[in-house]
Amino acid sequence: MAKQARAIQTRRTILEAAGAVFDEFGYESATIAEILSRAGVTKGALYFHFASKEELARGVLDAAITTEGVIPQESKLQEWVDVGMVLAHRLPQEPLLSAPIRLSADRRARELFGTSWAGWIDYLAEMLTVAKEQGELLPHVDPRQISMLFVSAWTGVEIVATAAVSDGDALEDRIAMLYDCFLPSIAVPGVLGRLDTAPDRGGRIWAAHKAQARAAADGDGQVVRG
Amino acid sequence: MAKQARAIQTRRTILEAAGAVFDEFGYESATIAEILSRAGVTKGALYFHFASKEELARGVLDAAITTEGVIPQESKLQEWVDVGMVLAHRLPQEPLLSAPIRLSADRRARELFGTSWAGWIDYLAEMLTVAKEQGELLPHVDPRQISMLFVSAWTGVEIVATAAVSDGDALEDRIAMLYDCFLPSIAVPGVLGRLDTAPDRGGRIWAAHKAQARAAADGDGQVVRG
Repeated sequence: MAKQARAIQTRRTILEAAGAVFDEFGYESATIAEILSRAGVTKGALYFHFASKEELARGVLDAAITTEGVIPQESKLQEWVDVGMVLAHRLPQEPLLSAPIRLSADRRARELFGTSWAGWIDYLAEMLTVAKEQGELLPHVDPRQISMLFVSAWTGVEIVATAAVSDGDALEDRIAMLYDCFLPSIAVPGVLGRLDTAPDRGGRIWAAHKAQARAAADGDGQVVRG
Repeated sequence: MAKQARAIQTRRTILEAAGAVFDEFGYESATIAEILSRAGVTKGALYFHFASKEELARGVLDAAITTEGVIPQESKLQEWVDVGMVLAHRLPQEPLLSAPIRLSADRRARELFGTSWAGWIDYLAEMLTVAKEQGELLPHVDPRQISMLFVSAWTGVEIVATAAVSDGDALEDRIAMLYDCFLPSIAVPGVLGRLDTAPDRGGRIWAAHKAQARAAADGDGQVVRG
């Protein structure tokens, strides 16, 4: 069991190093040597988990769709907002989250691996469908179309923000503004007024999630790894 | 004069070939040999205009900001919309317009060359400021912020659309939907209802521009090159 836990931890360490290297160099210029050096693991350990650079890139893409930290809300539309807010909070600190965007924006890399956008769109469309069933959306709203547009717009904001075309706004500020642009076209007025789209929303939800995880761990007497 | 016109044409041919090659392969993997082969010019001709792959990439980025085809409108907000609509119409046919997005999304390439986003944001912010002075925008709208968000979102929609995460919608359809999401948060109601955001708006404006250019050429007895 300890051995298995160590293997999972090693795999994660390698993926995080690969994410950082793909994020910085792009797929073509990334080298296994650089990934090894950042992960601080042996060649044998790396090849035990990933047979090639291709497999590393696939591993990074598979890790891309994560809703860790999103806490269920009575308003499904608020939860839909929280997904993008938490991601905007986490992404600048986690290359494993930004690397998939780099890989997907690279035409050659995505011919090899596809992208994680379709998965995100499916996930958000499903959530927005529930919001619509709960009466939170304007009648003309197509949950799938809006989710496709929002995933696209979110991606563009991230790409332009990291390219430092900036008046000093952090990613969280820009994503909050993006929601403020989209939501009046989506939400019924009564729901719109109650949505929390403050730039620090992602950080607050993420902190609450971490506190819950710690409390659960203390209750079980076990250590939970984020 | 004929010699100079030929040189301008050759430079354009080389830039278009470079745009196509950067668009397809990305900056790192693009080769001068491939650009030469597509342009159908001699090595001497290419090096006369561009001393290196770096200079070619800069030339492609410099050609990126074009508002050719946008026709002045009484409503500045409509003109602001038309910029993105005409670009959505032209881009799928013109690698010289899509290549800058590929180059800018590539972190390594943009460290070398910067991006054209700042220029687009400046241009659109200025136009939206005039729209605001004309009373077309809601009072809380910050023309610069909205233009930054819209350029970002437009870019993301283009990237995700070309990655073929698609329910069959063309770029023009998606960009039209994007305007429909943004505009209710920007425009005063009286203006909003009169804006034309139909997916074929860009094509119609582009055709009208071409007709005007032809008419002007006939009137002058000269040939205008688009």
